[in-house]
Amino acid sequence: MRQNLRIDGARLSSRLARLAEAGARPDGGVCRLALSDADKLGRDLVVGWMRELGLEVSIDAVGNVVGLRKGLEDGPPVMMGSHIDTVATGGHYDGCLGVMAGLEVVETLNNAGLTTRRPLAVAFFTNEEGARFQPDMFGSLVFTGVLAPEAALAIVSVDGAKAGDELKRIGYAGDAPTGKPNVHAYVELHVEQGPTLEAEGLRIGAVEGVQGISWTEFTILGQSNHAGTTPMRLRHDAGFAAAEIAVFARHLAADIGGYQVATVGALTLAPNLVNVVAERAVMTVDLRNTDNEILKQAEARLFAFVAEAAEAEGVIVETRTLARFEPVAFAPEMVDRVERIAREFDLPVKRLPSGAGHDAQMFAAVCPSCMIFTPSVGGISHNIKEYTRPEDLAAGADVLLRLVTELAE
Amino acid sequence: MRQNLRIDGARLSSRLARLAEAGARPDGGVCRLALSDADKLGRDLVVGWMRELGLEVSIDAVGNVVGLRKGLEDGPPVMMGSHIDTVATGGHYDGCLGVMAGLEVVETLNNAGLTTRRPLAVAFFTNEEGARFQPDMFGSLVFTGVLAPEAALAIVSVDGAKAGDELKRIGYAGDAPTGKPNVHAYVELHVEQGPTLEAEGLRIGAVEGVQGISWTEFTILGQSNHAGTTPMRLRHDAGFAAAEIAVFARHLAADIGGYQVATVGALTLAPNLVNVVAERAVMTVDLRNTDNEILKQAEARLFAFVAEAAEAEGVIVETRTLARFEPVAFAPEMVDRVERIAREFDLPVKRLPSGAGHDAQMFAAVCPSCMIFTPSVGGISHNIKEYTRPEDLAAGADVLLRLVTELAE
Repeated sequence: MRQNLRIDGARLSSRLARLAEAGARPDGGVCRLALSDADKLGRDLVVGWMRELGLEVSIDAVGNVVGLRKGLEDGPPVMMGSHIDTVATGGHYDGCLGVMAGLEVVETLNNAGLTTRRPLAVAFFTNEEGARFQPDMFGSLVFTGVLAPEAALAIVSVDGAKAGDELKRIGYAGDAPTGKPNVHAYVELHVEQGPTLEAEGLRIGAVEGVQGISWTEFTILGQSNHAGTTPMRLRHDAGFAAAEIAVFARHLAADIGGYQVATVGALTLAPNLVNVVAERAVMTVDLRNTDNEILKQAEARLFAFVAEAAEAEGVIVETRTLARFEPVAFAPEMVDRVERIAREFDLPVKRLPSGAGHDAQMFAAVCPSCMIFTPSVGGISHNIKEYTRPEDLAAGADVLLRLVTELAE
Repeated sequence: MRQNLRIDGARLSSRLARLAEAGARPDGGVCRLALSDADKLGRDLVVGWMRELGLEVSIDAVGNVVGLRKGLEDGPPVMMGSHIDTVATGGHYDGCLGVMAGLEVVETLNNAGLTTRRPLAVAFFTNEEGARFQPDMFGSLVFTGVLAPEAALAIVSVDGAKAGDELKRIGYAGDAPTGKPNVHAYVELHVEQGPTLEAEGLRIGAVEGVQGISWTEFTILGQSNHAGTTPMRLRHDAGFAAAEIAVFARHLAADIGGYQVATVGALTLAPNLVNVVAERAVMTVDLRNTDNEILKQAEARLFAFVAEAAEAEGVIVETRTLARFEPVAFAPEMVDRVERIAREFDLPVKRLPSGAGHDAQMFAAVCPSCMIFTPSVGGISHNIKEYTRPEDLAAGADVLLRLVTELAE
């Protein structure tokens, strides 16, 4: 394979811009919720490009789409994948970059008249965002055999529509098999969605794995009381207990350090009136760490504090686990390759974990997998202002091109 | 005046129960919002009782109703007053007790064939609760000359109706003069709406005054970020700053002690999602104290902490004063009388401030005024579960009877 082969950055940016027209919002963002009309538009566009590029398209029962490029030999392909669904206030890059860069790799090889030994594949998976159907990433969960297709098809969306019905409606209920993926290696190029690369002047992230995630909802039941007539000592203030927990979560993350993060993103008081002590508070705590043992300790310390704070305030706390995922480690050999290739391209690079979940984490259990990150300006994602500079998109796609051609030899 | 004169507790309870039928909720509570159809029903019932008891009824421009009982001499009456409007989820006692006990005092004197030297009056004032029209207590504000009647009549309710139009619609736009009250003394019997009397085994509260109130709204503007991908050190978390302020408010109240209270009753995050650092938090802080100088110090300490916390987190805070009332002191001679009379009746009594606002605070500026509190079971008020034991209702009315007959001599 020619070492000086490069993708066409302008063509990559152009495809991203054209895909962003499917579900374009008046404010410049994109709303392409999974299995919506806008998703159909986007899927039709991408499948059209796949066919133009000579890929053999297959669609499975939950709408995952794989475009296969034959190799010199038969066998499992090196797969480049991600997703094209977005959140309601999404941007142009999250997910789409990995898929458009896959197409760009194929077109670059086509134009150079090169065929890899192993087949290549470009894939996009259904409902990665989870903005319309829970759980998120159900496409890759089914593809890799973690979730039964029947279970995914029965999921009812936030708007009341069933996934199976929506798939049929938009014409993406296929018959390709699921659950026993035959993939040589899986690579996902993605925007970082965090500020670290930009803040440190880096252009490539060699993703070591995905942080473990622990989401807990606490429902705190206190006593509603008049803010003027109730002495402080007689209060059972659900809002105060919630505030104490939120402050503790921050201190916990600081105390543990490293990649530990802790976030109280949702907090709702009832009755939520200026002059009434809150009777009820519902709050979430999001804890993440790359190390499952440390994450467990963080959970234990949080739960112990919540119990103490509840006892002290005389409130009752109901605890519900909303999500718990163990950390995922990508194949070290793959991560090493990403790092080395970035250095060969003189692109400043750093190994780092992904703080967000990605389809790649499902593949880590079934084949050597990894991710390549490109910088997100301001760390902004899931936002109409999401932006990655064109030269960084191209640099990421160049690393992807070299990585998959190496893996396919 | 006969020292052994007592009101009829059963009759008092019966009138309270009948009044509670106007605007009765299926759950046992009362919804009698000011100037609503339910309020008209309640007013008609009370005015009917006033006339049955021989009171001369006058109604002013904002619907305040006064029932006058002639004395042996002409001159300003001793007035018993409160309100009969309720919050949307109100109970049977808040406000109504003071008015029904006034009628009970009159009926007791009528039945005993006694006429006081000075005239007596029973009054109820429009929109004390402020649940439908802002500001609350506009009736007594107009009655005592603080607010012009035209200003009150122009107020638009939360449901879009104008106070003046609603008054006409329900037939309570009268022509009695406002703004120059000619009242010898004002006494308001009311449920405590707090837990202090019950918790301390007391049956009467001799109310020394009304706490000063400071309501501030803080709008905190941070930066929305992904909870997984954003390192702790790069966050500008509006929710965390809000939680710190809520915890500080509690510690501030504890540190100041005495009658200082501090409440964060309302707190709203945006976008309020489990995995997104909050971009925006809107919160209220309610501070109250009987001493205006200490209240000012509490405000200053709160504002200084908010500024520090905002600086440390890199968030912007906008501050808005929602309400600020100075403390009101009732006439010490009146408070002494309440305390003495309760002792004469062998009713355990304590001097205490009112944490809530009441019509009586408007009268404090124009004539000797005071309030008598009876215990609220569980301190619960503004709630369908509001309850005061019948024997405590009767005890409060007996104290009222003796107090006004003394004052009317």
